[in-house]
Amino acid sequence: MKKIVLTGDRPTGNLHLGHYVGSLKKRVEMQKDYMTYIIIADFQALTDYFDQPSIIFENVYALVYDYLSCGIDPNLSKIFIQSHVGALLELSMYFMNIVSLARVQRNPTVKAELASKKMKNDVHCGFVFYPVSQAADITAFKADFVPVGVDQAPMIEQTNEIVRNFNRIYVNSPLKECKMILSDTSKLLGIDGKAKASKSLDNCIFLNDASSVVRQKVFNMYTDPDHIKISDPGRVEGNIVFHYLDVFYENKEHLLQLKTDYAKGGLGDIFLKELLFKVLEEILFPIREKRREIQIEDVKNIICEGNKAAKTVADQTLHEVKEAMRLNY
Amino acid sequence: MKKIVLTGDRPTGNLHLGHYVGSLKKRVEMQKDYMTYIIIADFQALTDYFDQPSIIFENVYALVYDYLSCGIDPNLSKIFIQSHVGALLELSMYFMNIVSLARVQRNPTVKAELASKKMKNDVHCGFVFYPVSQAADITAFKADFVPVGVDQAPMIEQTNEIVRNFNRIYVNSPLKECKMILSDTSKLLGIDGKAKASKSLDNCIFLNDASSVVRQKVFNMYTDPDHIKISDPGRVEGNIVFHYLDVFYENKEHLLQLKTDYAKGGLGDIFLKELLFKVLEEILFPIREKRREIQIEDVKNIICEGNKAAKTVADQTLHEVKEAMRLNY
Repeated sequence: MKKIVLTGDRPTGNLHLGHYVGSLKKRVEMQKDYMTYIIIADFQALTDYFDQPSIIFENVYALVYDYLSCGIDPNLSKIFIQSHVGALLELSMYFMNIVSLARVQRNPTVKAELASKKMKNDVHCGFVFYPVSQAADITAFKADFVPVGVDQAPMIEQTNEIVRNFNRIYVNSPLKECKMILSDTSKLLGIDGKAKASKSLDNCIFLNDASSVVRQKVFNMYTDPDHIKISDPGRVEGNIVFHYLDVFYENKEHLLQLKTDYAKGGLGDIFLKELLFKVLEEILFPIREKRREIQIEDVKNIICEGNKAAKTVADQTLHEVKEAMRLNY
Repeated sequence: MKKIVLTGDRPTGNLHLGHYVGSLKKRVEMQKDYMTYIIIADFQALTDYFDQPSIIFENVYALVYDYLSCGIDPNLSKIFIQSHVGALLELSMYFMNIVSLARVQRNPTVKAELASKKMKNDVHCGFVFYPVSQAADITAFKADFVPVGVDQAPMIEQTNEIVRNFNRIYVNSPLKECKMILSDTSKLLGIDGKAKASKSLDNCIFLNDASSVVRQKVFNMYTDPDHIKISDPGRVEGNIVFHYLDVFYENKEHLLQLKTDYAKGGLGDIFLKELLFKVLEEILFPIREKRREIQIEDVKNIICEGNKAAKTVADQTLHEVKEAMRLNY
């Protein structure tokens, strides 16, 4: 039997190259060998956007367009919507009794996000409890593997702790621990070179950006302010164009040569940017082409089928959990 | 249309005279005029008994026996099991985002219970958020009225606060505020005269106690240690037999006479206890008789029908809530 992978995204905006290189590419590779469930985590997104539900509403379909255009195959990967699989929310509630409040508040991911949001006493319950909700998502599918960035690793630890607690208390528990798959690509920086590429910082190249937009974004990248004439020696370290080439250009030998030439002087930014644009377009063009073929009706059907498949599995796990808890009067 | 009442109990033990006088009697009277939903709050009981699920398991049916034997009519009152109506748990999760953690921790009922349990940092999430779960139960049925003891009043306030928050954030919200019906009977003391009658203190007369057990419990009641001979003046104040007569004996004129005689001296405890026993048996005998007629199959059917009715209503409210939150992609 195929091992199970759970992965997904919050529907809060279009996906960008950072997502592509950090997770989407890997998902497409993995879907042949693993039974993949992709969760559109709209409930989780509500913890941040409960008062702006239209943001979520507008981005659910957009996310599916991004998935399909990158090569996610709905015959191999089940794409579903978290809020449409009620068992996930129910399961969260049962887990609440076996997690102490202090423990979720000590979760490093929660702590870091609380600090960044400057929330204190006004933090709402949903935010504090979201590790429990994630644990429900993962365990409902009896996932063997969950791909995560290193900042999300504490979530997986917390999930496995919940599983161990549950299994200690209840006999015949269906829950199993999962393993995380840490992203092996380093974080993609934003085109401003300042921080991780992120929608909220408006510093990324989106998978649905038109070719002309991509070109403009690449040509607007800062390189080295001291590299004025082509003949000037240029700085490779901290040069965002080279960072993108490091991540996306597969001819590493050529790249090394370019770096040497650039550092020596004699290699112009225009040349580098044309190359980067070409490299990115090799990725983005087929994505763009595929996107044009997608019909909204297909998207709706894929979600509908995905929801159905996810419901079947999650309902079954919930049923087993409730049996273990003897709620089967 | 009939107004809606939500009421219920945690399935953690047999019901006793305290429940009878505090809520059951009232429910039986009200069920003719109100659409009554009676929740067997097994999920809520798990917040205290998550590691002893067999306590809950054993008491779910017992509770229905108690209800039916007291005169709850399943044609008028829908009896259902909380954990079997998943929408209630789902709804709780959506409410989590609009309640601050500080607010639930400030809930007087939660605070009082935390203090009595000596829980501190090890308090689990389930316990802290149970006011949110109660709010979901109440609002799912769009209850107009919720009968509560005065110690539970903060729960209703919290529910209505959640409703107001939700309705402020989301247009087309289906949620409505409820009114509490405060129990008009004073608390029934335990037969030890020391505290409120409660199963955990083992100081109560259960509705399913055999006649001989009731007799023994009544005759074991402390009256007045200084009332040794019948001719001695007796203390009425703090005399637990008079407390029970106050609550259950309907001939108030006679009771006043008895108190006067007892205080003066010349009225024996045996006489009083025989009277109390007779008064209680007038209540308990028909309950006991009715209990003997109940078949386990009927109980199962009643729960099944109650669950179905409750599901229909709660699913509909959840659907409306999700529509209001625009989760209807």
